[in-house]
Amino acid sequence: MTPARPVYFISDHTGITAEIIGKSLLSQFPSEAFAQVSLPFVDSLEKANSAAQQVCDAWKLSNIKPLVFSTLTDPAARAALDACGAVVMDIYGHFLNMMVGEIGYPPEPLRGRFHGMSDDNSYRSRIDAVNFALAADDGLGLEKYQRADLILVGVSRSGKTPTSLYMAMQYGLCVANYPLTPENFDGSTGSPHGLPKSLQPFRAKLRGLTLAPERLAQIRSERRPNSAYASIETCKKELKQAELLMRSEGIPIVDSTHRSIEEISTMIKHSLSSDRKN
Amino acid sequence: MTPARPVYFISDHTGITAEIIGKSLLSQFPSEAFAQVSLPFVDSLEKANSAAQQVCDAWKLSNIKPLVFSTLTDPAARAALDACGAVVMDIYGHFLNMMVGEIGYPPEPLRGRFHGMSDDNSYRSRIDAVNFALAADDGLGLEKYQRADLILVGVSRSGKTPTSLYMAMQYGLCVANYPLTPENFDGSTGSPHGLPKSLQPFRAKLRGLTLAPERLAQIRSERRPNSAYASIETCKKELKQAELLMRSEGIPIVDSTHRSIEEISTMIKHSLSSDRKN
Repeated sequence: MTPARPVYFISDHTGITAEIIGKSLLSQFPSEAFAQVSLPFVDSLEKANSAAQQVCDAWKLSNIKPLVFSTLTDPAARAALDACGAVVMDIYGHFLNMMVGEIGYPPEPLRGRFHGMSDDNSYRSRIDAVNFALAADDGLGLEKYQRADLILVGVSRSGKTPTSLYMAMQYGLCVANYPLTPENFDGSTGSPHGLPKSLQPFRAKLRGLTLAPERLAQIRSERRPNSAYASIETCKKELKQAELLMRSEGIPIVDSTHRSIEEISTMIKHSLSSDRKN
Repeated sequence: MTPARPVYFISDHTGITAEIIGKSLLSQFPSEAFAQVSLPFVDSLEKANSAAQQVCDAWKLSNIKPLVFSTLTDPAARAALDACGAVVMDIYGHFLNMMVGEIGYPPEPLRGRFHGMSDDNSYRSRIDAVNFALAADDGLGLEKYQRADLILVGVSRSGKTPTSLYMAMQYGLCVANYPLTPENFDGSTGSPHGLPKSLQPFRAKLRGLTLAPERLAQIRSERRPNSAYASIETCKKELKQAELLMRSEGIPIVDSTHRSIEEISTMIKHSLSSDRKN
């Protein structure tokens, strides 16, 4: 077996940007094996030299030229890394040059740290949004719905909670979520087959999640194996009623069966900005 | 006032990679104003042409050349976008070429979708980890500690919950968190000034969070204004006792005062991989 190609994500800060770009590019070569190492906080020339040495050692050991994704900002540190001779994807180097050419003055690298707290207001609003999502999870905190940017609805285990948390953390949106349970369909929480009363004033903020019954049954079975709750019949019935309700109320629905929370969140966020434009 | 420079994040998928790279680069120019627009799911030549038109319109309106961060993979779509004449940072184009030169065969763009569910196991382990973090939040789910990769400890409002959720979502790590409350310091939950009994078997998994008393008082005041809980005296006392406890037990401590959850999470994760190496 060929050894895996060494891959390094090197950054003077968290390395989140380097990892995301790098992993995104590596995913374009699904049949290749990569041995991935993250080296964050490489914030001195000494550490850059030591990182370069580590890359060289991996090269010697594997006999395969390493790929390096770097977001180092200090020119001396970047030169030290480059000297290792591996394939160095110098992310800031390349694109900052293009941007400087247009913007007309050099970057101020020490001031802008995207994954830090430099933009304190935006950072706080994200943390507030996470707290909001926790307090308004699964039908809790109805009194907070006025403040919500969005309210996700769907049957139990349709992906509402992780989606709410992701949108909070990533976009700083206040996302509540409300479960559609069998009681919602028999009329005991509002008009029969109608929207639960607590949701009625917020129709424009509602977004629905659904998924294939087979997938739902599988997810529910992991939690409560062999239960009526997890049976395919229950799943089919609840999903059918929930979709009927959402359609009749004009709630936009996203199918989460083959979508990640990142994909679902992006689609919902995109639908919000399209609304605003119109 | 000069109008803001138009900035576009254009992708055939979620656009998360394009946004992260772009915003990270823009943050290097803190004194420049940018008007940012995301265009995800540009997955046909028609949509690419329409995106290029939108960039052109923004250019005409602002009279400032737009910056475009693109992760389009289809060569025809990329060419259509390029034709708009703006500064197009073609992320895949540039780096994939470097990688292909080394790897020796072309990418398989349709198969690798980093923010999707293509790697189903890793996606599921992230969702499981989010559920774990919720079930083992704030001292809940002690019976799950055996399964935890990490247990965060710290006083109330020291940042444990958002950090646990971020590490779950980003890295798929199962992170529990346990609050250090005044009862932990008077000996009623274990030996006086010692580790609570429920944490004792898991010493190696513990990581502590602390912060400046002034910052803690500010955060607590937002939740319960003018309370004893939020007073600077209480905060100072609790933090001092918690730090004493953590130090005496040899628990590594991260100060969250000036750090984002991304920074805290990266530092803790990095400390784990260093442990494993030794």
